[in-house]
Order: sequence, then C-alpha cells, then structure tokens
Amino acid sequence: MSKGTVVLAYSGGLDTSCILVWLQEQGYDVITYLANIGQDEDFEAARKKAESLGAKKMFIEDLQAEFVEQFIWPAVQANAIYEDRYLLGSSLARPCIARRQVQIARQEGAQFVSHGATGKGNDQIRFELTCYALYPEVQVIAPWRIPEFYSRFKGRDDLMKYAQEKGIPVPVSPKAPWSMDANLMHISYEAGILENPKTHRPSDLYLMTKNPEDSPNTPDVLEVEFLKGVPVKVTHLKEGRALDTPLQIFSYLNQIGGKHGVGRIDIVENRYIGMKSRGLYETPGGTILYHAHLDIETFTMDREVRRIKQGLGVKLSELIYYGYWFSPEFSFLQHCIEKSQEHVEGNVQISVFKGHVYVLGRQELTCELVSMNVQGDYDPGDASGFIKVNAVRLKEYHRLQGNAQPKN
Amino acid sequence: MSKGTVVLAYSGGLDTSCILVWLQEQGYDVITYLANIGQDEDFEAARKKAESLGAKKMFIEDLQAEFVEQFIWPAVQANAIYEDRYLLGSSLARPCIARRQVQIARQEGAQFVSHGATGKGNDQIRFELTCYALYPEVQVIAPWRIPEFYSRFKGRDDLMKYAQEKGIPVPVSPKAPWSMDANLMHISYEAGILENPKTHRPSDLYLMTKNPEDSPNTPDVLEVEFLKGVPVKVTHLKEGRALDTPLQIFSYLNQIGGKHGVGRIDIVENRYIGMKSRGLYETPGGTILYHAHLDIETFTMDREVRRIKQGLGVKLSELIYYGYWFSPEFSFLQHCIEKSQEHVEGNVQISVFKGHVYVLGRQELTCELVSMNVQGDYDPGDASGFIKVNAVRLKEYHRLQGNAQPKN
Amino acid sequence: MSKGTVVLAYSGGLDTSCILVWLQEQGYDVITYLANIGQDEDFEAARKKAESLGAKKMFIEDLQAEFVEQFIWPAVQANAIYEDRYLLGSSLARPCIARRQVQIARQEGAQFVSHGATGKGNDQIRFELTCYALYPEVQVIAPWRIPEFYSRFKGRDDLMKYAQEKGIPVPVSPKAPWSMDANLMHISYEAGILENPKTHRPSDLYLMTKNPEDSPNTPDVLEVEFLKGVPVKVTHLKEGRALDTPLQIFSYLNQIGGKHGVGRIDIVENRYIGMKSRGLYETPGGTILYHAHLDIETFTMDREVRRIKQGLGVKLSELIYYGYWFSPEFSFLQHCIEKSQEHVEGNVQISVFKGHVYVLGRQELTCELVSMNVQGDYDPGDASGFIKVNAVRLKEYHRLQGNAQPKN
Amino acid sequence: MSKGTVVLAYSGGLDTSCILVWLQEQGYDVITYLANIGQDEDFEAARKKAESLGAKKMFIEDLQAEFVEQFIWPAVQANAIYEDRYLLGSSLARPCIARRQVQIARQEGAQFVSHGATGKGNDQIRFELTCYALYPEVQVIAPWRIPEFYSRFKGRDDLMKYAQEKGIPVPVSPKAPWSMDANLMHISYEAGILENPKTHRPSDLYLMTKNPEDSPNTPDVLEVEFLKGVPVKVTHLKEGRALDTPLQIFSYLNQIGGKHGVGRIDIVENRYIGMKSRGLYETPGGTILYHAHLDIETFTMDREVRRIKQGLGVKLSELIYYGYWFSPEFSFLQHCIEKSQEHVEGNVQISVFKGHVYVLGRQELTCELVSMNVQGDYDPGDASGFIKVNAVRLKEYHRLQGNAQPKN
Repeated sequence: MSKGTVVLAYSGGLDTSCILVWLQEQGYDVITYLANIGQDEDFEAARKKAESLGAKKMFIEDLQAEFVEQFIWPAVQANAIYEDRYLLGSSLARPCIARRQVQIARQEGAQFVSHGATGKGNDQIRFELTCYALYPEVQVIAPWRIPEFYSRFKGRDDLMKYAQEKGIPVPVSPKAPWSMDANLMHISYEAGILENPKTHRPSDLYLMTKNPEDSPNTPDVLEVEFLKGVPVKVTHLKEGRALDTPLQIFSYLNQIGGKHGVGRIDIVENRYIGMKSRGLYETPGGTILYHAHLDIETFTMDREVRRIKQGLGVKLSELIYYGYWFSPEFSFLQHCIEKSQEHVEGNVQISVFKGHVYVLGRQELTCELVSMNVQGDYDPGDASGFIKVNAVRLKEYHRLQGNAQPKN
Repeated sequence: MSKGTVVLAYSGGLDTSCILVWLQEQGYDVITYLANIGQDEDFEAARKKAESLGAKKMFIEDLQAEFVEQFIWPAVQANAIYEDRYLLGSSLARPCIARRQVQIARQEGAQFVSHGATGKGNDQIRFELTCYALYPEVQVIAPWRIPEFYSRFKGRDDLMKYAQEKGIPVPVSPKAPWSMDANLMHISYEAGILENPKTHRPSDLYLMTKNPEDSPNTPDVLEVEFLKGVPVKVTHLKEGRALDTPLQIFSYLNQIGGKHGVGRIDIVENRYIGMKSRGLYETPGGTILYHAHLDIETFTMDREVRRIKQGLGVKLSELIYYGYWFSPEFSFLQHCIEKSQEHVEGNVQISVFKGHVYVLGRQELTCELVSMNVQGDYDPGDASGFIKVNAVRLKEYHRLQGNAQPKN
Repeated sequence: MSKGTVVLAYSGGLDTSCILVWLQEQGYDVITYLANIGQDEDFEAARKKAESLGAKKMFIEDLQAEFVEQFIWPAVQANAIYEDRYLLGSSLARPCIARRQVQIARQEGAQFVSHGATGKGNDQIRFELTCYALYPEVQVIAPWRIPEFYSRFKGRDDLMKYAQEKGIPVPVSPKAPWSMDANLMHISYEAGILENPKTHRPSDLYLMTKNPEDSPNTPDVLEVEFLKGVPVKVTHLKEGRALDTPLQIFSYLNQIGGKHGVGRIDIVENRYIGMKSRGLYETPGGTILYHAHLDIETFTMDREVRRIKQGLGVKLSELIYYGYWFSPEFSFLQHCIEKSQEHVEGNVQISVFKGHVYVLGRQELTCELVSMNVQGDYDPGDASGFIKVNAVRLKEYHRLQGNAQPKN
Repeated sequence: MSKGTVVLAYSGGLDTSCILVWLQEQGYDVITYLANIGQDEDFEAARKKAESLGAKKMFIEDLQAEFVEQFIWPAVQANAIYEDRYLLGSSLARPCIARRQVQIARQEGAQFVSHGATGKGNDQIRFELTCYALYPEVQVIAPWRIPEFYSRFKGRDDLMKYAQEKGIPVPVSPKAPWSMDANLMHISYEAGILENPKTHRPSDLYLMTKNPEDSPNTPDVLEVEFLKGVPVKVTHLKEGRALDTPLQIFSYLNQIGGKHGVGRIDIVENRYIGMKSRGLYETPGGTILYHAHLDIETFTMDREVRRIKQGLGVKLSELIYYGYWFSPEFSFLQHCIEKSQEHVEGNVQISVFKGHVYVLGRQELTCELVSMNVQGDYDPGDASGFIKVNAVRLKEYHRLQGNAQPKN
C-alpha cells in the first residue's frame, strides 16, 4: 500500500531522477513537477523521462510571466539587493516555483512535497518556508537531509551506479565542476572548483552574458519608462524598437545586457544557515533595471521618504534571500514599498556598454512633477540661520570635549 | 580702522578674487588660504595673484596626505556612499579644508572666515559646520548670502566688470558652461547646461577618466591588501609594481581607474538644503576601493555584524554629505565602524576594464581566518528543525489570513 | 494704508494681546484666532478682549473632536513617544491648530500669519512648518524673532508697561514662575524656576492630575476595546459605564487618569533647535492609552511586523516632535503604520491606581484570532536543529577569537 | 561502561532530580551544578539531595556579583527592554549560568551538558547558544526534547511516580499552578492557569514586591549616581544610607522597589521560537534603574548620538532575549554602547511610591558638563532661516500633491 502521494520538484537531471525512483522504492506515489521559469531546458524530454521512471503524472508549468510580474517587479521597486551586491535571482524564483508546487499538491490531494536541494544551502529553506506557509499541513521530504539517503549516496558515483541499476538514463556529457542554477533572471555558479574564494573563475564560465572583452565596441542606448516604480516600456533609441509587456521588457533587457556583458559578479555571501559561500552570478536585465530604477526613484521621490524606504528595501532584500516571501513581514513591507512608488514615474535613458550601465539622463512623466530649483521665496540668507541652528549642538559638543582647538 | 581679519578660502579664480577685493573694500584685513588637496592648480600663480590683490598673507597648504588618511580612509571603511551612488568626493574634502582654515584663523588671531560657496548648495554648510564646531566663536562671512554682495553681482558679467575696475586679472579662456570641483578623489560637474536632468553630458566633459570607448582593450589586474579595513598595499600583478603609502596607493588607483574610465556617474541627488540637484562625478580610485573593500569586508565579517555596520555606514554617509564630520554623532559612528574593521584583513584581486571593476578572488590574511564550510558537527538534519521552527509564525499567519489556500 | 492682513494665533493672554496691538501699530489689519483644543479658557472673554483691542474679526474654533480623531489617534496607533518618555501632547496640538489658522488665512485672503511662540522653542517650528506646507506663499510674522520687537520687550515688565500705555487689560493674578501649555491631551510646564534640571517641582504644580499621595485608595478597572488600533469603546467594569465616541473616550480616560494621578513625568528633552530643555508633563488619558495599545498590539501583531513597525513609530514620533506632521515622510509613515494596525483588535483590561497603569488581561476580538500555542505538528525535537543551525556562526566566531575557552 | 560525563544544571526540584536519575539510567556519569544568582533557595539541601541521588560532584557557585556587574550593568547602559516592556531578567541570567556550566564541563573533562528547560521556550536556546559558543564541541542533552523522555513523562504525575520508584524525595507542598523563575533581578510567572492571556492573575502571585495597595503611604527618595552609564552609588536621601558596590546597590534597589510594589508587568511576548506567550514579571530594582538611567542618559548625551544609540539598544535587547549574549554582533554592539556611555555621568533623584518611579531632578557630575541654554551668539532670527530651509521640501511636496489647499 502506498504511503501517500509526493509532488516532487523535478529537473530531469540525475539527482532528481534518482530521487524519483528512490521515493517509489520507499513506497510513495510520485507526481513530478517542472517549472518553466525561463531556464534553457528540453521540457518534453524531461516529461518523457519522468513518465518512464514511474511518475504518476508530470506537470510542466510555464511560470515566466508571473515570475516577472509578481516576483521580479516587486524586487525592482525595492531596489532589492543582498549584501550590497547580489540581485537575488535564485531567491526570487524559489517562492514562485514552490507556490505552484503546493497548488498542485493540494489539487492532487498529495500530503507530501519533495525537492533535491542540499542540506547546507539556502534553497531548501526558501522552498520549504513557502510550502509550510501556503500549505501548513504539508510534509516535506528532503532526501539530502535524510541519513538513509545521504549516507547511501555519498557522491556522484553512487548516484550513477544507482541510476545504472535502476535503468535511469545517465547524462552523457561530463558534469561541469561546479553547480549552476538558471532562470529568466540569472544564472548562478557555485561549489566545486569555485568554492575556494581565491580561485579565479574559468574564462568560459558565463553562459548568459558575453565577455566584455569580446562584446561590441558600440553602446546600445535604451529608454526605460516607469509607472509606479515598474518598467512599462523599453525603447531602443536608435533602432526605435519598443516593448511593453513585462516578459518582453525583461527578456529584451536580458538580451541587450547579455550582448554587452552586463551584470557579472563574483562574491562571498552569508547564507541563512550561518556559513559563508562563494557565488558567481550574471544578471544582465536585472542589473540594467536596478540602475534605471535607482535613478528614476531618487529623481522623483522626496529625500526623507527615500531614506525610510531605503531601510525597508534592505530589510526586504534580506527577507527575500532568507526565504520569507510568504510571511507577514514581507506582506507588510511590500505594501509600504508599493506606497512609496506611487510617484516613481518617468523615463531614464541609459547606455549599455562593455559590462557597464551608464545613466545618461532622466525625465519626469508629468512636466511639473519635479522642480529642480526652488521657485519664489527661497532667500539665500535663510541658509545662514539654517546652518547656525544646526551648529548649536556641534559647538556645545566641542566645548565639552575641550577640543574646540583643532588638532591635526 | 580695520573691522578685523578674515581668513578667506581662496581659489585664485574670478569669484574669490573679487571677494578678496570686496572684503577689503568693506574694511577687513584679508588673509588668503589655498588648500592643495590634489586639484590641478598653479599654486604659485595663485599666491602672486592674492598678494597683488592685497592679501596680508597667503597660506598654501598641502593637505593631500591627511585628506587620504584622515578622510578618505574612514569613508572606505564605512563603504560610504550617498543615496546608493555618490562616493562623496566633495563632501570629504570640505571638512579637511575648513579644519585647516580655522587653524590658520586661530593662529593668526582672525575672528572671521570667508568662502565663495553659493547660498543654495551643500558646500557652504559643510564649510561652516566645520568652522563653528572647531572654532565656535568664529564669524563666517558668506558673500553669496549677503544681499549687498549678491544683488550687486548678479551674474558673471558683473564680476568681470568689477574685476576690470579693480585691476583683478580676468581669465582669458571662456568659462565652461558648468561648474567643477576637483580634488584628489574626484571631479564633480554641475549647474549651467548640466542642470536640466534630461540633458546628456557633452562627450568631452570628464577630465580625470578616459572615455571607456577609447580606453585600453586589455584589463589591468591589481591586488589590494587591507589591514583593519584600510588599504595598505596595491600591487599590479603583471608588472609587479607595488605601492604602500596611503597617498601613493590612492594616486595609483586614480591613475589605473582613470586609464580605464572607471567611476563615472550621472545622478540627481537630494541636497541638505531641500532641493534636488543633478551632478556628474568621476571618482576613479575611490570606485576601485569601494568595490575591493566591500568584497573583503563581506568575506571577513560576521553576517550579523555586517547587517548592523551597514546601517551605521548609511547613516555616516549622510552625515558626511550634510557636513557633520566634526559632530558628536560622527565621532561615535566612526568609533563603532572602526571597531567593526578589526578583522577586515586580506587581499582582493580585481580587474579594471572599460569603466568597470571586477572582483576576481580574495584571500584572508591569516590562513584560518575564515572557514567557508562548517567543520565537524554540522548535521544536515538540523536544517529541518531550523526551517520548521522558523515556519511556526508563517503557518499561523496564513491560517489567520485564511489564505493558506495559495492564490495565483 | 494697510500692509495687509495677519491672522494671529491669539490666546487672550498678555503676550498675544501686546502682539495684537503691536501688529496694528506696524500697519497690519489683524484677525485673531483662538483654537479650542480642550484647554481651560474663557473663550468669550477672549473674544471681547480681542475685539476691544482692534481685531477685525475673531475666530474661535472648536477643534477638540478633530484633535482626538485626526492627531491623537494616529499617535496611539504608532505608540508615539519622544525619547522614550514624552507622549507629545504639545507637538500633536500644533499642526491641528496651525492647519485651521491657514484655512482662515486663505478664506479671509490674509497673506500673513503670526504667533507668540518664542525663538528658542519647538513650537515656532511646528507652527510654521505646517503653515508653509499648507499655504506655501504665506508669510510668517514671528515677533519674538524680530529684533525691533524682542529688543523692545525684554521682559514681562516691558510688556506690562506697554499694555498699560495701550489700554490692554493686564492680568490681576501674578504669573506662575514657569510657562504652561494646556490642551485636551496634556499640560506642560517649563522655563522659569523649572529650567534648572535639578530643581524639584513645587508640590502644587500639576493641574490635571491628582497627587498620587492623595489619590483614591481603590483602583478603577477599565476595559478598552480597539479596532484597527484605535480605541472604540471604554467601559468601567464595576460601574458599567461605557463610552464610544473618540472625544468621550479620551475625555473619560483623562478623568480616570487624572483622578489617580497618572501620566506625570519630569524630563530633560532634546529640542529640534539643538538645545536641551527641562519639561514636566501630565498626560493622564494618553498614558492609559499608550499602555493599553502597546498591550493589544503586541498581542495581535506578528513578531517581525512588530519589529519593523516599532522602528517606524520611533521615526514618526521624532517627526511629530520636530513639526513635520504635514510632510511627505509623515504621510508615508502614517500610511505604513495604519496598515500595520489592520488586525490590532481586541479588549484590554486595565487597573488605574496611584499614578500607575496595570494591564490585567487582554482578549482578541475574534476567538481564533490569536493562538497562544502551536497546534499540531510542532515537534520539540525541531528546536535542536533550530538552535544548532543558529549556533553555526557563534562557534566559528569564538573559534576565530581563540576565546572558546570561557573567561570570567 | 559510562557513556561519558554530563554536567547537569540542577535546581533541586522534581524535574531536574528525575533528570539526574534518568541520565544515570542512560549510562552517564552526572555532575550537578547549581548557580546562586540570588534566588531564594536552600543550597545545602540541594547539595545533599544531589549527592544522595548519585551525583559524582555537586558544584554550587555564587554568581551574584558577576551577574550584576557583567550582565545587568550592560543591560542598564543599553536601556535594554524587550518589546518595550520586559526588562529581561531571565534572559540576562541564562548566559551567566551557562558560562559557568561549560567552564565546569571543561574543567571536569565532561563532554556533555544537560538542562531541564522545555522544548517550546526561550531558555533552552539561551542556554545552548552560550554552551555552543563557549565550548563548541560540547554535546547538549535536553531531555524535554528527547522522545524517550518526554513521551515517558507526559505530566507531573509521571514524574512523581518515577520519583517514588527511584527514591527521589518528592515535594510535600503542592506545586503552584504556574511556573516561576527567580533570580536577583526578577521573578517571572507563566504557564498553567496564567497561560490564557485574559485570565487575571491571582492576587497573591508576586513574591518579590508588595501589592501597591498595601505598600507604604510615604515615598522613599533616592539618589543614584552614575559613572560611564553604570550606577556607582545609591543614597537614601532622608536616612542618609549609601551603598556603593554593584551587588549592594542592586540589592538595595530591589529592597526599596519591592517595598513599594515597583516593576510588576503582565504581558504577552513573542518568543524566539515563533509563538506568543503570556508572562508576568516583577523587576523592582531593575525598573528603578531603567528610569534613572534613561534620565541621566538623555540629560548628558547628544541628541543625535542618542538616536543612534537607541536603535542599537533595541537590537541589543532582542539579542539578549534570543540568547545571543556570546555572539559577534553582541560584542560589537556592546562595545558601541559602552562608547556612548563615556559621558553619562551624574546624579538622578527619584521618588519610589505605590508601584511607580518618579524622577525628581538630575545633576551632571561636572558643573559645566551640560548647558541647558545656549550662550553667546544664538540669535532668535536664525530660527527663521532654519525653518524656511526645512520647509523647502514640504512646500514642494504639497505643491505636487495639489493639496496645498488644506483639507479638514
């Protein structure tokens, strides 16, 4: 008798294929689920493989549009960036993928969900916090945290051997000596030979962006139009090409950014689990949008609102990285940030060239939206009073310190 | 009889030359002071000009080394950046310049200081808060805020006319249609034709950095070594050239950054005075250091310490921009940030190319300083408990919201 | 010919009566305005006095209800408190008063507003920022900052003399040796003999609250019901008396708090103007509400939302104190805080006795709103993993510090 | 053969006595350890009991002085308070107790530590994070999280039965229907009949403080002197009694506070583990110090330093509550907070009466330390410029909003 039904996040690769078979071995019925969030994948081959390995059903779900509109756009509004550098490509995809997984689990009456994420990483947390939030009664089977599984499969060789025994097709091309995670927003590279933080990356690592040394010698100049803090239109100023749906806009920015080698970073980051980890990322379109949004936001937003919103954005970025998309604090922060974007509206002109994004100019949407200089009654003399009142505390402090006498 | 002695921050240019004469006209004795903080200037010509225009004394002070060590280095430790983009080149120079100005005023027994900053800008504030902090009894004469001055000199033409009347040598070359401020750290460009935020900059604007389109087709690869969060050595890995005094390090990074067109930004920023203002900046060496320090810091610092320190750095940046270098809160924050840098020690390897800085790898100074993976007793199974406990609040929230049922 | 019309915030006292006459002397037409925000005042006598002194019109406006609903209630939602102690009674009243003043000014076609606040205090700022925000073209006449006024009236004696000359009725009872500001929310006492921070207050200072040494020996027990973070009903549990309009609720809490001597504080605070100042305040009803709201909020709000909201409330309190009620950042923060209050709903039972407020218990409005314990699948064993994962960073830190060996 | 040696935190009560026997049953040698942190306890009886139940050794350690100096004093400097109300009495004791426990474990060569804390509470976390931080290789045995233990002992009856079987002396007096935790700083009460947040407490609950209804009708007036933010002397102004060692000062404040019923709170708090929990606390001396320190700090500290320090204190409080005393971020924050206390020096006079603490006055230590008013060149006219410049943003905002027209 079956122990119940598991919805397994299935990639078609060796690991999750072995998990698919292993779960059946443990007595579960398995439904496989593969999200299309823009990665380069032969989805039909994956379907056939899953079915041939005993999956009761295989769901292939195109989440690209909702990934852009419901996950990437809020990140753009927040200028979301983890530890000042990472644009959160993987972190944003996880709640999008896991949300659909528990929808399928509910719809199919499955009590279990499973995934192939490792036991030391962030992805397990992002996946499972989403599952627990949206389907509190669900039980998660994480084989890489189950001793019977991970002590049986100590390395890739054990998986290969198991695959051969069970008739699981094995990859023909050798595996790259690192792991990758790809989606519409980015590709990440980590582990293996990249784990050592001092090792320079192989020159042919990146797949989504050109090496700036080989990229075109002429910039592309784009105009991005924002309404309420999200891009609504991108125009190539020279070619006149314009795009205006979220998925088209983002894909086009990926294409231009990729062509010019934009968005490559090599960082050591702090995982939620308490370790440090080295990662390399390429986020072409996201990087362009980050710069364009920062520009239009600072241009159109009051200084003090910006100060407060900046702090909220730092917090939101941390929540995204840690996996708290579906949390009360995230909902609250996102509501606040959306409010702050009400008047973030206008065009930014940018030049993309040799791995870098240059802002050339910006314009508010409504002519009178922003005045750069104060009309009317600003009297230069007022500044004297302003400065003197602000100096009151400083004078007192230096008097008390007895160091009003400047020291070198 | 003299109204007293004024120490005037004198640049040798038209404005401060007119102010020098005007102050004498008003009955003051004037001592001129020109700080060398790395700008491109004919200091001896300025001396002669000041003396010929009646200055009682002329002080030319080389502050370059103290500018780097006492002002730029603390900014590097703090990752100081205003509104996410501006590296504070002018803001850092002002307290350095004004500190020496009031030292001279005290030493010369002058009760007044004067400067040529405008009445709508940040610089007047930075100057004067420093003066009031370090010399509380000083009186500031800011001609551009005095109606008799600014209503008499409504434009450049009035200054030119006055200069001709008073025998002040006038510039032969026409003035650029914008204003500039140059020092060792950066050159800023603003006002005039640049004031309109949508106007693209002239292609020949920047003086300190090459246009990336014309910069070399081969990167330079450098290694920067940090101790306690400040750079102590820079090595060109291919050429083997190494520098190790603060001024040499910074100048060399300027040279490399300038060669590759690094550090150009075009922004709208929020002034302290409540207006927005468009500015263009080039900060070659500072940009390289910003990236290198961010990398070594995240690598060597505990995650939670980093979170706290990041917030303190944002606050410190604001204080620098607003002119509060010599304030109690600045002293306090700087002390805290220095503490955080105790273990920020190691090397970062970076590639500088076509306007961009790429981190290639990093290494802690002491071998065992940072472990990238957890030794010993980390048990993957622990992550299950970690996730489940963190999910407690989330489950409750979604239960209460009645939206445990995922919505699309 | 008249210089124009001034709307003067008029209290009926000596100072503003002198200002009323002086303004006419300067050539202005004066309209007087007296806001009723709950202070103990003979409004009709003030009307007669103003008219007899030449006021063109006298507006007496009852702002009590809007003061409670539009100013005090948002402060309650925010747990607004300045520097951890001051409940902002004066700060909240100022924008309420000044808003009506500029409404009158606009309606009456007056280009000027005037007030009697001193030049070293916070109130001038709160008044004028509101005026400038809501009537940008208005001109403010602040006599206590005008040399011709303040050098003419150096002390109370000069005002008395002027009053006698001009036929202004002078107060018969001697002035208390301190200043007071009273409204529905509080009375503040400062300056004069209270200015020295070490001087103990006179025992008969407070007017709104009983001395706890003389207050009843039996507590009153109340129940306060909150919806969306604001009180909607107060019930005296023993007497059964219940009130449910904002003004009634607040007045009743003032009465009970006053009877039991609740809400007296004696503090030194930091003014916006950069000085420190000693103030004594009594805020009976506001203090009760502060404790009750804090209780229901912590009870009904998610922990992490509370953390974020607490920070926003600290910022909001500062904005209120500084006078930025009508600012973009205030609007933004208030919007965020209101959002956080959506589920702050329930009853709090409190005992008021001898100067103190004790919370006795609380209950959510909907039975299932808050569960105090986790149902279902919480497994104590999960805590082990939670703790061990959280210990990863700590172990590493102490290993690096070489001080894993505990020191005493 | 023994599985190894365990150092058990032993209270002498039923639970830990059963654990002591049970651990031996499981094959461990057990060393018991009882910390004297000021609780009311018959330490010698506990020693005998432990020894009679098979403990290899019994350590009774007087940690009172170090608890006050090394744990409570830093909390006073930080104004440490959790969720605006809880003064952290238990949270501060745990790292103090656990630090000694791992010292003993190291000294005795024990590889294990054990405690009787439950699996849903905060104390287990505070204990174990300290143990792991200071003795990374230690293994923790937490019986209430071990299924064989907690499923065997489902309630008090099971423990009583086990005690009778094993010859463990059982308590003669019936257990209170709640749990208590007592130390020098506070007694906490929770669980049992108190768990329901709406239940009012029994009138005889509190043990450390008098019911204010029965407390004296005359206040006691004390003077507390602070140096670098910690109390160095307490004087009873009428009686002239003075105390000046940390333990004496704190004990005396407990005595006075207890006599007047000070420091009782009834709250619902957010545990680290994600649940809410109702707790009642009495913290007499700590409450007095909280108010006194807050007063002297605001009096002696610059406004902007105070703003920053307040935020750091909120964070520190959270770390204390969560159990991160021995963490890198705690060390960092404590260092910063100590720095902020350099000039927090002076006397505060307070009246303690009927459950409340009133500040009467305060005085800086050095006469010139704080000036309440600005000498010299403060010109009231400066305030006009200050206000007008600060209004620039506000005018612009309301212009843009089109709501310069005030609405009611």
